[in-house]
Amino acid sequence: MFVTFEGLDGSGKSTQAQLLADALRGQGRDVVATREPGGTPLGEQVRQILLDGHAMVPWAEAALFAAARAELAETVIVPALQAGKDVVSDRYIDSSLAYQGIARDLGVDRILRLNLEATRGVLPDRTILVLVDPETARARTRASDRIERESAEFHAAVDDAYRALAAMFPNRIVAVDGTTPPKELAQKILGRLRDLS
Amino acid sequence: MFVTFEGLDGSGKSTQAQLLADALRGQGRDVVATREPGGTPLGEQVRQILLDGHAMVPWAEAALFAAARAELAETVIVPALQAGKDVVSDRYIDSSLAYQGIARDLGVDRILRLNLEATRGVLPDRTILVLVDPETARARTRASDRIERESAEFHAAVDDAYRALAAMFPNRIVAVDGTTPPKELAQKILGRLRDLS
Repeated sequence: MFVTFEGLDGSGKSTQAQLLADALRGQGRDVVATREPGGTPLGEQVRQILLDGHAMVPWAEAALFAAARAELAETVIVPALQAGKDVVSDRYIDSSLAYQGIARDLGVDRILRLNLEATRGVLPDRTILVLVDPETARARTRASDRIERESAEFHAAVDDAYRALAAMFPNRIVAVDGTTPPKELAQKILGRLRDLS
Repeated sequence: MFVTFEGLDGSGKSTQAQLLADALRGQGRDVVATREPGGTPLGEQVRQILLDGHAMVPWAEAALFAAARAELAETVIVPALQAGKDVVSDRYIDSSLAYQGIARDLGVDRILRLNLEATRGVLPDRTILVLVDPETARARTRASDRIERESAEFHAAVDDAYRALAAMFPNRIVAVDGTTPPKELAQKILGRLRDLS
Protein backbone atom coordinates (compact mmCIF):
# COMPACT_ATOMS: atom_id res chain seq x y z
CA MET A 1 0.00 0.00 0.00
CA PHE A 2 1.03 3.59 -0.63
CA VAL A 3 -0.15 5.90 2.15
CA THR A 4 0.57 9.61 2.47
CA PHE A 5 0.15 11.97 5.42
CA GLU A 6 -0.93 15.56 4.95
CA GLY A 7 -1.67 18.52 7.18
CA LEU A 8 -0.20 21.73 8.48
CA ASP A 9 3.28 21.81 9.98
CA GLY A 10 2.62 21.16 13.65
CA SER A 11 -0.42 18.95 12.99
CA GLY A 12 1.36 15.84 14.21
CA LYS A 13 1.36 14.20 10.75
CA SER A 14 5.08 13.33 10.86
CA THR A 15 4.63 11.54 14.18
CA GLN A 16 1.68 9.63 12.76
CA ALA A 17 3.61 8.70 9.61
CA GLN A 18 6.36 7.27 11.83
CA LEU A 19 3.88 5.41 14.05
CA LEU A 20 2.20 3.88 10.99
CA ALA A 21 5.53 2.74 9.51
CA ASP A 22 6.43 1.18 12.88
CA ALA A 23 3.05 -0.54 13.20
CA LEU A 24 3.23 -1.99 9.68
CA ARG A 25 6.76 -3.25 10.32
CA GLY A 26 5.45 -4.79 13.54
CA GLN A 27 3.03 -6.76 11.35
CA GLY A 28 6.04 -8.11 9.43
CA ARG A 29 5.54 -5.84 6.44
CA ASP A 30 8.41 -4.28 4.50
CA VAL A 31 7.99 -0.49 4.68
CA VAL A 32 9.76 2.38 2.93
CA ALA A 33 9.22 5.61 4.88
CA THR A 34 9.96 8.87 3.11
CA ARG A 35 9.26 12.56 3.28
CA GLU A 36 8.77 15.56 1.04
CA PRO A 37 10.40 17.64 -0.12
CA GLY A 38 13.41 15.33 0.02
CA GLY A 39 13.67 11.58 0.19
CA THR A 40 16.30 11.42 -2.58
CA PRO A 41 19.71 13.12 -2.98
CA LEU A 42 18.18 15.49 -5.57
CA GLY A 43 15.15 16.06 -3.36
CA GLU A 44 17.29 17.01 -0.38
CA GLN A 45 19.14 19.59 -2.53
CA VAL A 46 15.80 21.01 -3.66
CA ARG A 47 14.54 20.95 -0.05
CA GLN A 48 17.42 23.23 0.96
CA ILE A 49 16.44 25.75 -1.71
CA LEU A 50 12.74 25.56 -0.87
CA LEU A 51 12.93 25.79 2.89
CA ASP A 52 16.15 27.65 3.68
CA GLY A 53 16.19 29.93 0.67
CA HIS A 54 14.90 33.37 -0.04
CA ALA A 55 11.55 34.41 -1.45
CA MET A 56 10.60 32.96 -4.81
CA VAL A 57 7.68 33.37 -7.19
CA PRO A 58 4.82 30.88 -6.67
CA TRP A 59 5.38 28.97 -9.94
CA ALA A 60 9.06 28.49 -9.10
CA GLU A 61 8.00 26.99 -5.78
CA ALA A 62 5.45 24.72 -7.45
CA ALA A 63 7.93 23.51 -10.06
CA LEU A 64 10.64 22.83 -7.46
CA PHE A 65 8.23 20.67 -5.43
CA ALA A 66 7.24 18.85 -8.63
CA ALA A 67 10.91 18.24 -9.49
CA ALA A 68 11.64 16.69 -6.10
CA ARG A 69 8.44 14.63 -6.35
CA ALA A 70 9.25 13.34 -9.86
CA GLU A 71 12.58 12.03 -8.59
CA LEU A 72 10.98 10.49 -5.47
CA ALA A 73 8.18 8.78 -7.39
CA GLU A 74 10.36 7.28 -10.09
CA THR A 75 13.41 6.28 -8.03
CA VAL A 76 11.89 5.40 -4.63
CA ILE A 77 8.10 4.97 -4.57
CA VAL A 78 7.50 2.99 -7.78
CA PRO A 79 10.42 0.58 -7.26
CA ALA A 80 9.30 -0.07 -3.65
CA LEU A 81 5.69 -0.73 -4.66
CA GLN A 82 6.84 -2.99 -7.51
CA ALA A 83 8.92 -4.95 -5.00
CA GLY A 84 5.79 -5.50 -2.91
CA LYS A 85 6.74 -3.05 -0.16
CA ASP A 86 4.52 -0.50 1.56
CA VAL A 87 5.38 3.18 1.14
CA VAL A 88 4.52 5.79 3.79
CA SER A 89 5.26 9.38 2.83
CA ASP A 90 5.13 12.48 5.01
CA ARG A 91 3.57 14.85 2.41
CA TYR A 92 3.02 14.22 -1.32
CA ILE A 93 0.91 15.66 -4.16
CA ASP A 94 -1.85 17.03 -1.90
CA SER A 95 0.65 19.37 -0.25
CA SER A 96 1.17 21.05 -3.62
CA LEU A 97 -2.56 21.12 -4.31
CA ALA A 98 -3.19 22.81 -0.95
CA TYR A 99 -0.19 25.15 -0.68
CA GLN A 100 0.51 26.12 -4.30
CA GLY A 101 -2.75 25.19 -6.02
CA ILE A 102 -5.18 26.77 -3.54
CA ALA A 103 -3.37 28.91 -0.94
CA ARG A 104 -1.03 30.49 -3.52
CA ASP A 105 -3.85 30.47 -6.07
CA LEU A 106 -2.09 28.76 -9.01
CA GLY A 107 -5.12 26.49 -9.56
CA VAL A 108 -5.75 22.94 -8.34
CA ASP A 109 -6.29 21.75 -11.92
CA ARG A 110 -2.94 23.07 -13.14
CA ILE A 111 -0.97 21.83 -10.14
CA LEU A 112 -2.67 18.43 -10.26
CA ARG A 113 -1.90 18.07 -13.96
CA LEU A 114 1.75 19.09 -13.50
CA ASN A 115 2.16 16.62 -10.66
CA LEU A 116 0.39 13.75 -12.40
CA GLU A 117 2.73 14.31 -15.35
CA ALA A 118 5.81 14.62 -13.14
CA THR A 119 5.00 11.46 -11.15
CA ARG A 120 3.64 9.64 -14.20
CA GLY A 121 0.32 9.29 -12.42
CA VAL A 122 1.47 7.72 -9.15
CA LEU A 123 -1.22 8.57 -6.59
CA PRO A 124 -1.49 7.21 -3.02
CA ASP A 125 -3.99 4.46 -2.19
CA ARG A 126 -5.00 6.51 0.84
CA THR A 127 -4.12 9.90 2.27
CA ILE A 128 -4.47 10.65 5.97
CA LEU A 129 -5.24 14.32 6.53
CA VAL A 130 -4.39 15.27 10.12
CA LEU A 131 -6.56 18.24 11.01
CA VAL A 132 -5.83 20.66 13.82
CA ASP A 133 -6.79 24.26 14.29
CA PRO A 134 -4.18 26.39 12.42
CA GLU A 135 -3.34 28.39 15.55
CA THR A 136 -2.73 25.21 17.53
CA ALA A 137 -0.53 23.86 14.73
CA ARG A 138 1.39 27.12 14.59
CA ALA A 139 1.99 27.12 18.33
CA ARG A 140 3.54 23.63 18.03
CA THR A 141 6.13 24.59 15.37
CA ARG A 142 9.33 26.55 15.67
CA ALA A 143 8.56 28.44 12.43
CA SER A 144 12.04 27.50 11.39
CA ASP A 145 11.69 27.41 7.62
CA ARG A 146 10.51 29.76 4.88
CA ILE A 147 7.04 28.21 4.55
CA GLU A 148 6.49 27.84 8.31
CA ARG A 149 7.25 31.56 8.65
CA GLU A 150 4.32 32.49 6.38
CA SER A 151 1.49 34.51 7.93
CA ALA A 152 -1.33 33.13 10.06
CA GLU A 153 -3.68 34.01 7.18
CA PHE A 154 -1.65 31.84 4.85
CA HIS A 155 -1.81 28.84 7.20
CA ALA A 156 -5.54 29.34 7.65
CA ALA A 157 -5.88 29.32 3.84
CA VAL A 158 -3.90 26.06 3.68
CA ASP A 159 -6.18 24.54 6.33
CA ASP A 160 -9.23 25.55 4.28
CA ALA A 161 -7.53 24.15 1.19
CA TYR A 162 -6.95 20.77 2.80
CA ARG A 163 -10.59 20.57 3.89
CA ALA A 164 -11.65 21.38 0.32
CA LEU A 165 -9.37 18.65 -1.05
CA ALA A 166 -10.88 16.11 1.36
CA ALA A 167 -14.29 16.95 -0.12
CA MET A 168 -12.92 16.68 -3.68
CA PHE A 169 -11.32 13.25 -3.14
CA PRO A 170 -13.59 11.58 -0.54
CA ASN A 171 -12.50 8.01 -1.32
CA ARG A 172 -8.79 8.66 -1.11
CA ILE A 173 -8.49 11.32 1.62
CA VAL A 174 -9.46 10.45 5.20
CA ALA A 175 -9.53 13.37 7.62
CA VAL A 176 -8.65 12.61 11.25
CA ASP A 177 -8.64 14.72 14.40
CA GLY A 178 -5.07 15.73 15.23
CA THR A 179 -5.97 16.61 18.81
CA THR A 180 -6.52 12.93 19.61
CA PRO A 181 -3.67 11.49 21.77
CA PRO A 182 -0.97 10.16 19.37
CA LYS A 183 -1.18 6.43 20.16
CA GLU A 184 -4.97 6.45 20.10
CA LEU A 185 -4.90 8.31 16.77
CA ALA A 186 -2.41 5.80 15.35
CA GLN A 187 -4.88 2.98 16.17
CA LYS A 188 -7.71 4.85 14.46
CA ILE A 189 -5.56 5.41 11.36
CA LEU A 190 -4.72 1.69 11.19
CA GLY A 191 -8.44 1.02 11.23
CA ARG A 192 -8.94 3.34 8.25
CA LEU A 193 -6.35 1.38 6.25
CA ARG A 194 -7.59 -2.14 7.03
CA ASP A 195 -9.25 -2.57 3.62
CA LEU A 196 -5.89 -1.99 1.85
CA SER A 197 -3.79 -4.75 3.41
CA MET B 1 12.03 43.61 -27.79
CA PHE B 2 12.55 40.23 -26.18
CA VAL B 3 14.98 38.08 -28.18
CA THR B 4 16.22 34.62 -27.23
CA PHE B 5 19.11 32.58 -28.61
CA GLU B 6 18.89 28.82 -28.98
CA GLY B 7 21.11 26.05 -30.26
CA LEU B 8 23.45 23.32 -29.13
CA ASP B 9 26.24 24.05 -26.67
CA GLY B 10 29.14 24.99 -28.91
CA SER B 11 26.89 26.50 -31.61
CA GLY B 12 28.16 30.01 -30.89
CA LYS B 13 24.78 31.23 -29.60
CA SER B 14 26.25 32.75 -26.41
CA THR B 15 28.71 34.80 -28.47
CA GLN B 16 25.88 35.98 -30.71
CA ALA B 17 23.69 36.87 -27.71
CA GLN B 18 26.53 39.00 -26.38
CA LEU B 19 27.18 40.63 -29.78
CA LEU B 20 23.48 41.47 -30.13
CA ALA B 21 23.31 43.02 -26.65
CA ASP B 22 26.42 45.09 -27.47
CA ALA B 23 25.00 46.19 -30.83
CA LEU B 24 21.67 47.25 -29.32
CA ARG B 25 23.47 49.19 -26.59
CA GLY B 26 25.54 50.81 -29.34
CA GLN B 27 22.24 52.05 -30.78
CA GLY B 28 21.52 53.70 -27.43
CA ARG B 29 19.02 51.06 -26.31
CA ASP B 30 18.75 49.83 -22.73
CA VAL B 31 19.42 46.08 -22.73
CA VAL B 32 19.10 43.40 -20.06
CA ALA B 33 21.20 40.36 -21.02
CA THR B 34 20.50 37.11 -19.19
CA ARG B 35 21.05 33.39 -19.48
CA GLU B 36 19.37 30.13 -18.59
CA PRO B 37 19.38 28.24 -16.38
CA GLY B 38 20.31 31.05 -14.05
CA GLY B 39 19.89 34.79 -14.30
CA THR B 40 18.46 35.12 -10.77
CA PRO B 41 19.81 34.02 -7.35
CA LEU B 42 17.29 31.14 -7.33
CA GLY B 43 18.13 30.28 -10.93
CA GLU B 44 21.84 30.07 -10.19
CA GLN B 45 21.15 27.65 -7.31
CA VAL B 46 19.03 25.54 -9.65
CA ARG B 47 21.72 25.78 -12.35
CA GLN B 48 24.22 24.18 -9.96
CA ILE B 49 21.89 21.23 -9.38
CA LEU B 50 21.07 20.86 -13.07
CA LEU B 51 24.56 21.08 -14.51
CA ASP B 52 26.91 19.93 -11.76
CA GLY B 53 24.67 17.36 -10.15
CA HIS B 54 24.14 13.68 -10.59
CA ALA B 55 21.68 11.90 -12.86
CA MET B 56 18.01 12.79 -12.43
CA VAL B 57 14.76 11.58 -13.96
CA PRO B 58 13.59 13.56 -17.04
CA TRP B 59 10.57 15.15 -15.35
CA ALA B 60 12.74 16.39 -12.46
CA GLU B 61 15.01 18.04 -15.01
CA ALA B 62 12.05 19.61 -16.84
CA ALA B 63 10.52 20.94 -13.62
CA LEU B 64 13.84 22.39 -12.41
CA PHE B 65 14.28 24.30 -15.68
CA ALA B 66 10.68 25.53 -15.40
CA ALA B 67 11.30 26.70 -11.81
CA ALA B 68 14.36 28.73 -12.81
CA ARG B 69 12.46 30.13 -15.80
CA ALA B 70 9.43 31.14 -13.71
CA GLU B 71 11.68 33.17 -11.43
CA LEU B 72 13.55 34.73 -14.37
CA ALA B 73 10.38 35.67 -16.25
CA GLU B 74 8.58 37.24 -13.30
CA THR B 75 11.49 39.00 -11.59
CA VAL B 76 13.75 39.96 -14.52
CA ILE B 77 12.18 39.71 -17.98
CA VAL B 78 8.72 41.16 -17.35
CA PRO B 79 9.94 44.12 -15.25
CA ALA B 80 12.58 44.95 -17.89
CA LEU B 81 10.08 44.83 -20.76
CA GLN B 82 7.61 46.90 -18.75
CA ALA B 83 10.35 49.49 -18.22
CA GLY B 84 10.84 49.71 -22.00
CA LYS B 85 14.13 47.81 -22.06
CA ASP B 86 15.20 45.11 -24.49
CA VAL B 87 15.84 41.63 -23.12
CA VAL B 88 18.33 39.23 -24.72
CA SER B 89 18.43 35.73 -23.23
CA ASP B 90 20.88 32.93 -23.93
CA ARG B 91 18.33 30.03 -23.92
CA TYR B 92 14.67 30.13 -22.86
CA ILE B 93 11.53 28.01 -23.37
CA ASP B 94 12.65 26.43 -26.66
CA SER B 95 15.58 24.79 -24.85
CA SER B 96 13.08 22.85 -22.74
CA LEU B 97 10.94 22.04 -25.78
CA ALA B 98 14.00 20.65 -27.61
CA TYR B 99 15.89 18.94 -24.77
CA GLN B 100 13.11 17.71 -22.47
CA GLY B 101 10.07 17.83 -24.75
CA ILE B 102 11.57 16.12 -27.80
CA ALA B 103 15.03 14.66 -27.07
CA ARG B 104 13.95 13.24 -23.68
CA ASP B 105 10.51 12.44 -25.12
CA LEU B 106 8.32 14.12 -22.46
CA GLY B 107 6.18 15.73 -25.19
CA VAL B 108 6.35 19.22 -26.69
CA ASP B 109 2.72 19.87 -25.75
CA ARG B 110 3.24 19.05 -22.06
CA ILE B 111 6.52 20.96 -21.76
CA LEU B 112 5.10 23.96 -23.61
CA ARG B 113 2.03 24.04 -21.36
CA LEU B 114 4.13 23.74 -18.19
CA ASN B 115 6.40 26.57 -19.32
CA LEU B 116 3.59 28.83 -20.48
CA GLU B 117 2.01 28.37 -17.04
CA ALA B 118 5.31 28.88 -15.21
CA THR B 119 6.18 32.05 -17.16
CA ARG B 120 2.57 33.24 -17.27
CA GLY B 121 2.75 33.18 -21.07
CA VAL B 122 5.86 35.31 -21.62
CA LEU B 123 7.20 34.28 -25.04
CA PRO B 124 10.03 35.97 -26.98
CA ASP B 125 9.25 38.30 -29.89
CA ARG B 126 11.90 36.47 -31.88
CA THR B 127 14.16 33.47 -31.31
CA ILE B 128 17.47 33.10 -33.14
CA LEU B 129 18.31 29.43 -33.64
CA VAL B 130 22.03 29.06 -34.33
CA LEU B 131 22.48 25.85 -36.31
CA VAL B 132 25.72 23.96 -36.61
CA ASP B 133 26.39 20.31 -37.25
CA PRO B 134 26.18 18.49 -33.85
CA GLU B 135 29.68 17.04 -34.24
CA THR B 136 31.13 20.48 -34.91
CA ALA B 137 29.29 21.88 -31.87
CA ARG B 138 30.52 19.02 -29.73
CA ALA B 139 34.13 19.56 -30.80
CA ARG B 140 33.86 23.23 -29.70
CA THR B 141 32.70 22.45 -26.11
CA ARG B 142 34.65 21.17 -23.16
CA ALA B 143 31.80 18.77 -22.24
CA SER B 144 32.13 20.22 -18.78
CA ASP B 145 28.58 19.81 -17.48
CA ARG B 146 26.07 16.99 -17.09
CA ILE B 147 24.08 17.84 -20.22
CA GLU B 148 27.14 18.56 -22.38
CA ARG B 149 28.44 15.10 -21.41
CA GLU B 150 25.37 13.39 -22.96
CA SER B 151 25.96 11.07 -25.92
CA ALA B 152 26.48 12.14 -29.53
CA GLU B 153 23.08 10.54 -30.29
CA PHE B 154 21.43 12.78 -27.70
CA HIS B 155 22.94 15.94 -29.20
CA ALA B 156 21.90 14.82 -32.68
CA ALA B 157 18.35 14.35 -31.33
CA VAL B 158 18.43 17.88 -29.86
CA ASP B 159 19.57 19.26 -33.23
CA ASP B 160 16.68 17.46 -34.97
CA ALA B 161 14.37 18.80 -32.25
CA TYR B 162 15.43 22.41 -32.82
CA ARG B 163 14.88 22.07 -36.58
CA ALA B 164 11.40 20.66 -35.89
CA LEU B 165 10.62 23.59 -33.56
CA ALA B 166 11.70 26.07 -36.26
CA ALA B 167 9.13 24.45 -38.56
CA MET B 168 6.46 24.57 -35.81
CA PHE B 169 6.99 28.27 -35.03
CA PRO B 170 8.09 29.79 -38.37
CA ASN B 171 7.18 33.38 -37.50
CA ARG B 172 9.00 33.44 -34.19
CA ILE B 173 12.05 31.22 -34.77
CA VAL B 174 14.69 32.30 -37.29
CA ALA B 175 17.36 29.70 -38.06
CA VAL B 176 20.82 31.02 -38.95
CA ASP B 177 24.03 29.31 -40.06
CA GLY B 178 26.40 29.05 -37.10
CA THR B 179 29.40 28.44 -39.36
CA THR B 180 29.22 32.04 -40.62
CA PRO B 181 32.07 34.19 -39.18
CA PRO B 182 30.79 35.71 -35.89
CA LYS B 183 30.74 39.41 -36.85
CA GLU B 184 29.13 38.69 -40.21
CA LEU B 185 26.54 36.51 -38.49
CA ALA B 186 25.83 39.26 -35.94
CA GLN B 187 25.04 41.65 -38.81
CA LYS B 188 22.69 39.12 -40.40
CA ILE B 189 20.90 38.63 -37.08
CA LEU B 190 20.44 42.39 -36.65
CA GLY B 191 18.81 42.36 -40.10
CA ARG B 192 16.37 39.67 -38.96
CA LEU B 193 15.29 41.83 -36.01
CA ARG B 194 14.85 45.13 -37.87
CA ASP B 195 11.04 44.86 -37.92
CA LEU B 196 10.94 44.71 -34.10
CA SER B 197 12.70 47.94 -33.21
